[in-house]
Amino acid sequence: MATEPFAAVDVIRTKRDGGQLSPEQIDWVIDAYTRGVVADEQMSALAMAIFLNGMDREEISRWTTAMINSGERLDFSSIVGPGKKLATADKHSTGGVGDKITLPLAPLVAAYNVAVPQLSGRGLGHTGGTLDKLESIPGWQANLSNERTLELLGSTGAVICAAGSGLAPADKKLYALRDVTSTVEAIPLIASSIMSKKIAEGTGSLVLDVKVGSGAFMKDAAAARELAETMVALGEDAGVDTRALLTNMETPLGLTVGNACEVEESVEVLAGGGPADVVELTVELAREMLLASGVDEDPSEALKDGRAMDVWKRMIRDQGGDPDAKLPQPKETHTVLAEKTGVLTRLDALGVGVASWRLGAGRARKEDQVQAAAGIRLHAKPGDTVTSGQPLMTLMTDTPERFDFALESLENAYAVGETFQQQPLILGRVGTK
Amino acid sequence: MATEPFAAVDVIRTKRDGGQLSPEQIDWVIDAYTRGVVADEQMSALAMAIFLNGMDREEISRWTTAMINSGERLDFSSIVGPGKKLATADKHSTGGVGDKITLPLAPLVAAYNVAVPQLSGRGLGHTGGTLDKLESIPGWQANLSNERTLELLGSTGAVICAAGSGLAPADKKLYALRDVTSTVEAIPLIASSIMSKKIAEGTGSLVLDVKVGSGAFMKDAAAARELAETMVALGEDAGVDTRALLTNMETPLGLTVGNACEVEESVEVLAGGGPADVVELTVELAREMLLASGVDEDPSEALKDGRAMDVWKRMIRDQGGDPDAKLPQPKETHTVLAEKTGVLTRLDALGVGVASWRLGAGRARKEDQVQAAAGIRLHAKPGDTVTSGQPLMTLMTDTPERFDFALESLENAYAVGETFQQQPLILGRVGTK
Repeated sequence: MATEPFAAVDVIRTKRDGGQLSPEQIDWVIDAYTRGVVADEQMSALAMAIFLNGMDREEISRWTTAMINSGERLDFSSIVGPGKKLATADKHSTGGVGDKITLPLAPLVAAYNVAVPQLSGRGLGHTGGTLDKLESIPGWQANLSNERTLELLGSTGAVICAAGSGLAPADKKLYALRDVTSTVEAIPLIASSIMSKKIAEGTGSLVLDVKVGSGAFMKDAAAARELAETMVALGEDAGVDTRALLTNMETPLGLTVGNACEVEESVEVLAGGGPADVVELTVELAREMLLASGVDEDPSEALKDGRAMDVWKRMIRDQGGDPDAKLPQPKETHTVLAEKTGVLTRLDALGVGVASWRLGAGRARKEDQVQAAAGIRLHAKPGDTVTSGQPLMTLMTDTPERFDFALESLENAYAVGETFQQQPLILGRVGTK
Repeated sequence: MATEPFAAVDVIRTKRDGGQLSPEQIDWVIDAYTRGVVADEQMSALAMAIFLNGMDREEISRWTTAMINSGERLDFSSIVGPGKKLATADKHSTGGVGDKITLPLAPLVAAYNVAVPQLSGRGLGHTGGTLDKLESIPGWQANLSNERTLELLGSTGAVICAAGSGLAPADKKLYALRDVTSTVEAIPLIASSIMSKKIAEGTGSLVLDVKVGSGAFMKDAAAARELAETMVALGEDAGVDTRALLTNMETPLGLTVGNACEVEESVEVLAGGGPADVVELTVELAREMLLASGVDEDPSEALKDGRAMDVWKRMIRDQGGDPDAKLPQPKETHTVLAEKTGVLTRLDALGVGVASWRLGAGRARKEDQVQAAAGIRLHAKPGDTVTSGQPLMTLMTDTPERFDFALESLENAYAVGETFQQQPLILGRVGTK
């Protein structure tokens, strides 16, 4: 029996008593957890101690590095494109409702010769998953080998695919554990989870979209800023140019929440149209990604002149998808009407997200299937004037027995009143130059 | 699939965020943990949240009741003795070094026609176990059925036996979990663990010996008092007359630490001799147990006149032991000598306890065997004058390769100096009338 240099109980006790974990303790506990020497019940006790007693910057940085070291490292920092090397820029959103931004953003940035490797996930709970959305496109496949990913980054410039299981396996194991032990919302653990995967993938730069509001992980701006600052610091420690936008998630992004309907809206944006908030956030994130890669150009141009759409179509075809195919349509719809005339003063992101999830667009357990056509189309956004009897939103599903359950979560999710003060979409910036 | 009224994540989150658990949440989480519906990793996260955020008196009381309800209840409150009913009094020590008090105490109290059911445990770590000590007596068996225990309480009046697995099984499962997750030392969890078993056994009264000092769970008096007050309150809530003594555990009790040697010392006390501190604590605890049972007599009498010794011999024979048999002797001994002349100013309970454990008297894992003859004989106690070259203690083991490891833990465990201020043995009382 190999002797272990530490005992799990001592590491847990250190953090329980408010102490700082040593670099050696952190390296060991992550490695031993990955090997199964530290048991789930020990790691969950440690996670709760971290939740309640925190970690300082040094600890978080080491924790992140230890998770990176639990698996393979890629190197997307420099991609060989046609005739030249390309910088790479990655984007990560902490998750919101109607957040389809990755879909137009990746091809838009690639249109400026900056490679965009988007290793993405599936949705769990009320926030959607980028891969779930793209899988509503007939023929499209999420899985690519690392070699194929590198090749496509060189040719098309943008790839959205499933993150391989080789990146930060300790994070994968720890995330599943945190999910069942109410230790998800700890800033040190969220920050290290996100950044370990992004740093392991070896991107040249990273722009973070940290959501704030009812539909986000972080309900208040102070916590969201702390998370953003923690992640930007971790990126800097690892030599990755990292910037963050804090963005509003009180209300859903755009006019669609679901899978196929969000792809449709993304294509509208790529065609130069689409809802103003989706366009604004896509362009702002693209601008930061381009600046981080040394490109000082106006990203809205490539939406207008069709270059971003060209990359999108190539990108979808690269993974077997037909960008011109008709997207799945729901078997049943149910329309929610305005009960009075006035201004829509509230449309709660969480309520709409949960309703869409309940309609079949999301999953409660990892093994669940999602419905491609399920979701919600919004016909009004906060600030819009509505007339009694006018459609406010259309619920879509293949399984109409779900309508009642979905409607329950919408009951207090919207209000029609008299006055409305528009909130800005971009609430703050961290690490932008 | 039966639907559960709560989800573990919600119960954990409530305590994580500093809230009060509802009675229904507590009942459910203990029951569901016993059934395996709440997983170990969820319970350990909850235990850590309780450790760091506490439980109030109402929560602790309900938690204790829920653990009692996870198993069977006995009723030792009234025992049929020869011609009359006997009151019962139980004692629990939070664990110390050289703490053999249960051995003389149980027969002593029974000599006054108060029945003493001592459902005891084995040692783990540096504190010894009552059953381990008694098992050094040739022929003595720890396991009795509940029926036989009741019968012996009626005839002999004192029984020291293994606690059956039917009492508070939730506590058994939770204790094993806390042991590996550094969540042992939380006052709400210690108090409910101890009291659930004592209340489930249905004793009429209970006297607690809460140890304070280096060799105890509780290193400081304030924490020990809080634990004592919590347990006395729990006893009162359950209708059990509960009292506590806070006693000094900076230095070992008596002059022996181990198994057979502690039995030998206990017999000396029962014969009217023995070290002053062991006699004092035995008599003080006996006095409280008798008072709780309505008997106002001087317990030291039955030590002097042989009545306690008579009960001891019957009690040992009842369980197959030979009270007159020669006890196991160690194969090897090693004597530690005083390096200078002066007053012994310090003899640290933890250091001596760990040394005895390392010599083979204790176990590191539940499945380990203990050596009956292993342990330490002390030749001086703090306050005694010692001469350079005089024996300070004798280390005993059957496996002499352990001496070096044991001596390591004694290195800073004692000191010879000039002046010594004797500390009282009994530091405080809670709930005494």
